[in-house]
Amino acid sequence: MVIVMKPNSKEEQIKDVCKVLESVGLGVHISKGSQVTIIGVIGDKKLLNNIPLELMPGVDKLVPIMDSYKLASKTFKPEPSIIDVDGVKIGGEEIVIMAGPCAVESKEQLMEAAEKIKIAGAQFLRGGAYKPRTSPYSFQGLEKEGLEYMLEAKKKTGMKIVTEVISQESIEIADKYADMFQIGARNMQNFHLLREVGKTKKPVLLKRGISATIEEWLNAAEYIMSEGNYNVVLCERGIRTFETATRNTLDISAIPVLKSKTHLPVIVDPSHATGKWEYVIPLSRAAIAAGADGLMIEVHPNPRCALSDGPQSLTPEKFIELCTTIEKLAPLVGRKYIMK
Amino acid sequence: MVIVMKPNSKEEQIKDVCKVLESVGLGVHISKGSQVTIIGVIGDKKLLNNIPLELMPGVDKLVPIMDSYKLASKTFKPEPSIIDVDGVKIGGEEIVIMAGPCAVESKEQLMEAAEKIKIAGAQFLRGGAYKPRTSPYSFQGLEKEGLEYMLEAKKKTGMKIVTEVISQESIEIADKYADMFQIGARNMQNFHLLREVGKTKKPVLLKRGISATIEEWLNAAEYIMSEGNYNVVLCERGIRTFETATRNTLDISAIPVLKSKTHLPVIVDPSHATGKWEYVIPLSRAAIAAGADGLMIEVHPNPRCALSDGPQSLTPEKFIELCTTIEKLAPLVGRKYIMK
Amino acid sequence: MVIVMKPNSKEEQIKDVCKVLESVGLGVHISKGSQVTIIGVIGDKKLLNNIPLELMPGVDKLVPIMDSYKLASKTFKPEPSIIDVDGVKIGGEEIVIMAGPCAVESKEQLMEAAEKIKIAGAQFLRGGAYKPRTSPYSFQGLEKEGLEYMLEAKKKTGMKIVTEVISQESIEIADKYADMFQIGARNMQNFHLLREVGKTKKPVLLKRGISATIEEWLNAAEYIMSEGNYNVVLCERGIRTFETATRNTLDISAIPVLKSKTHLPVIVDPSHATGKWEYVIPLSRAAIAAGADGLMIEVHPNPRCALSDGPQSLTPEKFIELCTTIEKLAPLVGRKYIMK
Amino acid sequence: MVIVMKPNSKEEQIKDVCKVLESVGLGVHISKGSQVTIIGVIGDKKLLNNIPLELMPGVDKLVPIMDSYKLASKTFKPEPSIIDVDGVKIGGEEIVIMAGPCAVESKEQLMEAAEKIKIAGAQFLRGGAYKPRTSPYSFQGLEKEGLEYMLEAKKKTGMKIVTEVISQESIEIADKYADMFQIGARNMQNFHLLREVGKTKKPVLLKRGISATIEEWLNAAEYIMSEGNYNVVLCERGIRTFETATRNTLDISAIPVLKSKTHLPVIVDPSHATGKWEYVIPLSRAAIAAGADGLMIEVHPNPRCALSDGPQSLTPEKFIELCTTIEKLAPLVGRKYIMK
Repeated sequence: MVIVMKPNSKEEQIKDVCKVLESVGLGVHISKGSQVTIIGVIGDKKLLNNIPLELMPGVDKLVPIMDSYKLASKTFKPEPSIIDVDGVKIGGEEIVIMAGPCAVESKEQLMEAAEKIKIAGAQFLRGGAYKPRTSPYSFQGLEKEGLEYMLEAKKKTGMKIVTEVISQESIEIADKYADMFQIGARNMQNFHLLREVGKTKKPVLLKRGISATIEEWLNAAEYIMSEGNYNVVLCERGIRTFETATRNTLDISAIPVLKSKTHLPVIVDPSHATGKWEYVIPLSRAAIAAGADGLMIEVHPNPRCALSDGPQSLTPEKFIELCTTIEKLAPLVGRKYIMK
Repeated sequence: MVIVMKPNSKEEQIKDVCKVLESVGLGVHISKGSQVTIIGVIGDKKLLNNIPLELMPGVDKLVPIMDSYKLASKTFKPEPSIIDVDGVKIGGEEIVIMAGPCAVESKEQLMEAAEKIKIAGAQFLRGGAYKPRTSPYSFQGLEKEGLEYMLEAKKKTGMKIVTEVISQESIEIADKYADMFQIGARNMQNFHLLREVGKTKKPVLLKRGISATIEEWLNAAEYIMSEGNYNVVLCERGIRTFETATRNTLDISAIPVLKSKTHLPVIVDPSHATGKWEYVIPLSRAAIAAGADGLMIEVHPNPRCALSDGPQSLTPEKFIELCTTIEKLAPLVGRKYIMK
Repeated sequence: MVIVMKPNSKEEQIKDVCKVLESVGLGVHISKGSQVTIIGVIGDKKLLNNIPLELMPGVDKLVPIMDSYKLASKTFKPEPSIIDVDGVKIGGEEIVIMAGPCAVESKEQLMEAAEKIKIAGAQFLRGGAYKPRTSPYSFQGLEKEGLEYMLEAKKKTGMKIVTEVISQESIEIADKYADMFQIGARNMQNFHLLREVGKTKKPVLLKRGISATIEEWLNAAEYIMSEGNYNVVLCERGIRTFETATRNTLDISAIPVLKSKTHLPVIVDPSHATGKWEYVIPLSRAAIAAGADGLMIEVHPNPRCALSDGPQSLTPEKFIELCTTIEKLAPLVGRKYIMK
Repeated sequence: MVIVMKPNSKEEQIKDVCKVLESVGLGVHISKGSQVTIIGVIGDKKLLNNIPLELMPGVDKLVPIMDSYKLASKTFKPEPSIIDVDGVKIGGEEIVIMAGPCAVESKEQLMEAAEKIKIAGAQFLRGGAYKPRTSPYSFQGLEKEGLEYMLEAKKKTGMKIVTEVISQESIEIADKYADMFQIGARNMQNFHLLREVGKTKKPVLLKRGISATIEEWLNAAEYIMSEGNYNVVLCERGIRTFETATRNTLDISAIPVLKSKTHLPVIVDPSHATGKWEYVIPLSRAAIAAGADGLMIEVHPNPRCALSDGPQSLTPEKFIELCTTIEKLAPLVGRKYIMK
């Protein structure tokens, strides 16, 4: 961290700041410029967590130099992490595709979706049993019943199960059914929930909050990791901007940025980001071309009858078209994807 | 809701859409324009919740006409609500001020803050016992111990207690100490938590999510109200924008917008919005001048030693200066505030 | 357009609105819902341009149904436009790449860049002679001298020239040198400038404003087209959001959105969008994978010595690597690009 | 400026960076931290304008310490500037109000508006003769004819005239009629135009760009000032955010921020910011309460017939109500405003 003093700060004020820093065990480096003096702080910034240096006389501002997360950073672990979900590896050579309906609606709907998705080579079946919805009057999910259908679909197809958890109770229940927990965008800074999934050893798919910076997102991953669960996969799903032509703005740039800052794998969800199925195929191609480790795609056997997010769901036929393209595209970026 | 058909939609497609609408009990009104046909939907939109009309052939888009919340709307209850918190009325003639440290740090700190805040006429003592922090390595609150100090301060000063809850467990504990629950910005769409506070009868201060639209905010209030707890007070605390000179952008315009859309009272928190104590007094004046029902202000007996958010905390002396101004300003907007 | 009346609007107020509409030659369709009445307006909305219906008693709001641009819309011209720039076709099967230094700095710099760019197959040489810079103290461009170097490079390599214009005077001068005018992001709503380039017949590359919606962008194109110049190519270059890890957020979703709304070709500039050369190659691949008609890339023979935007410039070697990838990627999306 | 080296940077790389700095005459201060080394740069940053240090081996990032504008900064001139517009002082004790129709539509409309506005004490008549509009099909202004009506209104009422200029030609014409030029939000970074008004000596009202940071805004002021015209007044008019309940989000916090960074006066325009006349009075009060030096308000004798922005215009009666409130409010913030 660098402390910038005000242009007219006094010698004594500079000394006072240094004294405080040294009193907690930090080193200092004073650099007197033509207009201002800056003080470089040497040592672990955490020692300063509880000291509002900004309020000391003569201090203009603090400028952070290092990232605030540690376990999630590439500095901590330079080589990419490969997260093993019961044999399926996320972050390795193979592109991973997670697909399924937004919400589990019925046994028939899920089984039909699952069988067709399996054909296209997807490794994961997704499906919401607990649905956080903007309005309390919208369909909120089948809960445990939905998870039972998921398990049945898993038994039939061999695909792994990823599903959203929204509370400690849902974690306990989903733990028996799912191979991977999903933390939704709205809960990305529900720190209590992050700690709870951190206490399990189950892999976690952590969606980016709708207005979260990449740094906040990595700090959310840090919450999970700091509890001992290092099996975190990030999922970019669009950020909120002024543009209204798409539901959110898919931040494709986040992919190379993350690759430079963290060792954790990154998955892209173009279905929720855009809200329109027509845009899902071109943006899926874009995500893989930019270096994503996988995709999360909404597929519904009959989107017109979906109880949630029908307009953004692909039909199984369109999903197969998507996977065919990804199979061809993957080798161009040093990856592979195999249709079954 | 209005359904806009595509310019080249066919007569049969229009009929098909009408059939679907009528099949769930809705009325239709067809309006053929020079370029497109639009279909007005008559009846309760909720009947359409699970039907993705956007996917029907010939349909271009759906345009909502009515707001999605009900209990929170002025249409449902035109006159302003006054929320009674154990005798203190929020939303009435009197401006309500909630003040205190960001985090409860020690008994001494809280008692000192409380006594000075009381002198300035504040009706509520605020203080965080459970602190949601961006980094897992920051101070996370004294939890139950902090609540006990809050209760002691209440006994000594007579001020009401408002404190943040972050989980079912914290609700159960805080219920014994607090007069009002606070839902923080990061939990505004933690629907599980909203339902839980909705099941209590205790008044709830609902902070706006950092990137929540006013409509989403009112839907979050609706979650609480739909469980039977109508004692909701809204708290504007800044939204995330591209501007970096302040931590967030305080949306003062939200005050008159809310006054036109909802009967719920609205409180403004300029401390978190700006992150700098220097801006707190001018923005507090602005909030009251724009019609806010009250303020939430961070006050710390010794900001330089605060364990959380020191740079945005007022000293007790500055807080008294603020209250003096509010006392004079209130009558200009038909309100009152009385220093003790 | 649809006019939504207030819940408690009176029969007479509805009649008054209809009278006004009919008085300017518009048709009306009244649709009485369970809670509100809506009035569909039939005919050319332009007749209403100067009538603030929102202010009539009983009116709640106006909801636009049709887009506000016409010549730029797919409704007006469903098939994609191919813009011919002196023989090079933008929007056809072939991917078009425009490359060169941010600013023309010297004859040597430009010639060296041009020759290397030519080898990679780029059809256009870009280079700024008039530079709009945030600070008045930054390098503002070589102006006419820079254009002369551009012309020389064109003669030597055969590449077409695209360069930014910022005023009527610069249009007049650049007209003698450039094959295509560029309108920069900061001037996207400089309507006076748009009209001036619209009066020429020269193709125009119209960059998206840093906070422009897609609709405003297409309206800016409409300004140029309404003066008779239909040779407009759009250039996505990132929008301003809260994220600070990249300079702007490249809106890749805008590509499929534009393809569904307009017949104009779309080019993507990942260099300005991200501000970091490391992200340029992955995002270029993403843009082509999403369906862009071409790329605009900053290339500098010696980025470390660039007078403007060095950090986002590719070296000629990296640029060749990029073009090699594009050559392989293009066929996967039904396009082609040929390295020389 | 501080240069942050990468964690694994080598001794030689640090030396190389220092050599470059010293070669242009800058001083260096090396500070070796526990994880990274930072280099403080001493001297005028402008010497580095053309050297992309980010690209040197071992460099992680550059962190600016000082603001990029100079003439507009408080460091350059600590005491507030008072801009004298032909006898009316902006930035002094007296609140300045500029009012009038969005567009000059006819002599009758303008004279009627002017006379009523005069009664309420406004010192400036505003009115657009050159109108930048999003769509080329909207009313574009009466141009010179409109300015003549403005001059006539000035003669009759004694109010000063402020009007928008959009090109060199309009500057030349408006120069004969107006007391103050206005630069609109869309032209805030039309640097060519900024230089042109900078070459005149006439006071300039500089509106904030719709997505401009405060720093960019002050740099735009710097463009005008660097040409020798120091008579710049800033006008906050709302920024673009995700919120759609108001047209833009009025950034009231910008007022105290500007007061801490610049000596230039600041005026607030709540009419364009919100787009709804109902919100204009509460937000005008908020602006003055937050410390603004004045207001710019749209007033139309008959808003229902306005050719531009009717929905946001106050009637003369409402405008008088507004001024009455401001008269009472001003003394609370150490200012005054006198109704005639």
